[in-house]
Amino acid sequence: MGRVVGVVGGGQLARMMIAPAVELGVELRVLAEEPGMAAALAASDVGDYRDAETVLAFARGVDVVTFDHEHVPHDVLRAVLAEGIPVHPGPDALQYAQDKLLMRAKLAELGMPQPEWSAVRDAAELQAFIDEHGGRAVVKTARGGYDGKGVRVVSAGTEADDWFATIAEFGEGADGHGGALLAEELVPFTRELAQQVARRPGGEVVSWPIVETVQRDGVCAEVIAPAPHASERLLEVAARLGVDIATGLGVTGMLAVELFETSDERILVNELAMRPHNSGHWTQDGAVTSQFEQHLRAVLDLPLGDPSPREEWSVMVNILGGPAEGTLEDRFAAAMAAHPSVKIHTYGKAPRPGRKVGHINASGDDLDDVAYQARAATAFFQ
Amino acid sequence: MGRVVGVVGGGQLARMMIAPAVELGVELRVLAEEPGMAAALAASDVGDYRDAETVLAFARGVDVVTFDHEHVPHDVLRAVLAEGIPVHPGPDALQYAQDKLLMRAKLAELGMPQPEWSAVRDAAELQAFIDEHGGRAVVKTARGGYDGKGVRVVSAGTEADDWFATIAEFGEGADGHGGALLAEELVPFTRELAQQVARRPGGEVVSWPIVETVQRDGVCAEVIAPAPHASERLLEVAARLGVDIATGLGVTGMLAVELFETSDERILVNELAMRPHNSGHWTQDGAVTSQFEQHLRAVLDLPLGDPSPREEWSVMVNILGGPAEGTLEDRFAAAMAAHPSVKIHTYGKAPRPGRKVGHINASGDDLDDVAYQARAATAFFQ
Repeated sequence: MGRVVGVVGGGQLARMMIAPAVELGVELRVLAEEPGMAAALAASDVGDYRDAETVLAFARGVDVVTFDHEHVPHDVLRAVLAEGIPVHPGPDALQYAQDKLLMRAKLAELGMPQPEWSAVRDAAELQAFIDEHGGRAVVKTARGGYDGKGVRVVSAGTEADDWFATIAEFGEGADGHGGALLAEELVPFTRELAQQVARRPGGEVVSWPIVETVQRDGVCAEVIAPAPHASERLLEVAARLGVDIATGLGVTGMLAVELFETSDERILVNELAMRPHNSGHWTQDGAVTSQFEQHLRAVLDLPLGDPSPREEWSVMVNILGGPAEGTLEDRFAAAMAAHPSVKIHTYGKAPRPGRKVGHINASGDDLDDVAYQARAATAFFQ
Repeated sequence: MGRVVGVVGGGQLARMMIAPAVELGVELRVLAEEPGMAAALAASDVGDYRDAETVLAFARGVDVVTFDHEHVPHDVLRAVLAEGIPVHPGPDALQYAQDKLLMRAKLAELGMPQPEWSAVRDAAELQAFIDEHGGRAVVKTARGGYDGKGVRVVSAGTEADDWFATIAEFGEGADGHGGALLAEELVPFTRELAQQVARRPGGEVVSWPIVETVQRDGVCAEVIAPAPHASERLLEVAARLGVDIATGLGVTGMLAVELFETSDERILVNELAMRPHNSGHWTQDGAVTSQFEQHLRAVLDLPLGDPSPREEWSVMVNILGGPAEGTLEDRFAAAMAAHPSVKIHTYGKAPRPGRKVGHINASGDDLDDVAYQARAATAFFQ
């Protein structure tokens, strides 16, 4: 259609926008951190996303700027907006995905269900929070954490001294919160869920069914869509919550809301991601409209696609770099021969232990079989 | 997976291989006829596919050579093979898609059902064929025809004099057949069908369900998958026929067999295409494995994917360049708003009247609704 979307960041999320962009006739340009990244095929620029001039030069060649990650500094985004170039999600929304303390405060203001939390400025404040919450707490850095990094379960106020020291070293208020960490209650959850929604600048919003996410070592390992045993009420409440957060925060593009489900079927907001997210990769093959196509539609302010599941069940299993023997090509051939119905997605990354290098989707009407196909095919790569 | 597939030809078929190539981690390189073609994103070379040195230089950088079209000369392909670079489909198979007289003779040898036919060398021979077949016949040039070009319905032997003259001008035997045209009986068909199969070099072969193709002005307008009212017998006979032709001709990669269905439910072979084909575009969204992914798997000699339909019905409608008013982007937005469940595929081509510039797929369990969605969405572009 002749529109140009610029993606800051050359990782696998940018890479997976290539396929729908080609089919829709959207030109995708990528500002990659370095050459040879996952989205190399669409990489038009290589440079530092923290540098305003670099991002501005990139942005001047596109119709809208969006992201592979949430790390572009606020003032850089403001500079792009100041030139009249649309940015989706915009800095006003993105700050809530960049800063967990801001997010907690905003969600509280919106009345969203979330774990009990507090900004803690030193070991004494953290100890007080721990004492009030059964002797343990989750401590998070407000900024920069992902895939389990910047998150720690503690039982003593001194266990985050290194983080407090780092914050102090970078100066009072450098993180915008007077040097605070985020303390959260350790939620006794039964499982983790995720709700995907997409929102256009004009306000149109659609939601996919809520999914179950299985984490291993703090990293998403597997997603089941929809979440098994999800009641109609859970599906409705979660979709409403996703829509309310997207609307309340002014998100444009994809929003993933990571949730805890408690034994009394309450859901509490854990994290937010304002971009396509690992918990939505199943939509590539399991939904009429994938999160990657939907993100392109949303940031271009085009009508959103149908998010309906295409089959009763879909399961996504991540491929983590591991100690598998044989060449990668041997593994492909063996996995394809044994599991002709699964869809293999690769990120073009060198396989290092624990690194996400791809994922496998399977869909069908028998959850046991679908999960088996996806897991067994993935096992060939690990 | 680190393998490199080289596609000769930069049209929409090469373009539609990009999406599955990115996901599978296959590097796609394209030898385009000119800059800015449909597959420009993957175009690594621009040059004349009839020039052996150009094709050889391209082929030396890839693991296997395949095609967007069937027009690469036999001796050019032989030169590539002579350097030990795999070519799929190979020249021995491809000749049957390049030359309709060779195809008819080979299919006769294999005992495949086809219209009555004859090689005719002049107006008198054509007149004799017409007289033997009820006063009319279809005349085709052996080489070079597509989308209704090089095909003519005649009722007098003199109606192909211009073609005979052209053949004579290029010298006796320049087309490899002593200057002959192909005459075929005008089959009283009830509808046209197409059978897709894929075959690996080692012999593994899979087939999709037979589809109905609707032609307008000699150009494919619409495809319904599977063909409505197809009996189990028809599905089986057509799949068997596709497999037998792929095997008998040694096809590697995708094969499309265009068929006539007669009122007594016989099927007769009309044309062959040894590449992804318009009649298989529905598989992008309607089958577990699309013809584009399958073609990549087959030419890389990887295990083939499951060709099962994902939904009961799929309909594909071509977007032809036409007189629609408003900007292309307005049409996208209007079509997307009215039909959120259809999948729009564009070829990045300037819309000229009658030119295929994209297609729309729809899938679901109610054929009337699926066909309505695909047709009505397409209407926004025409």
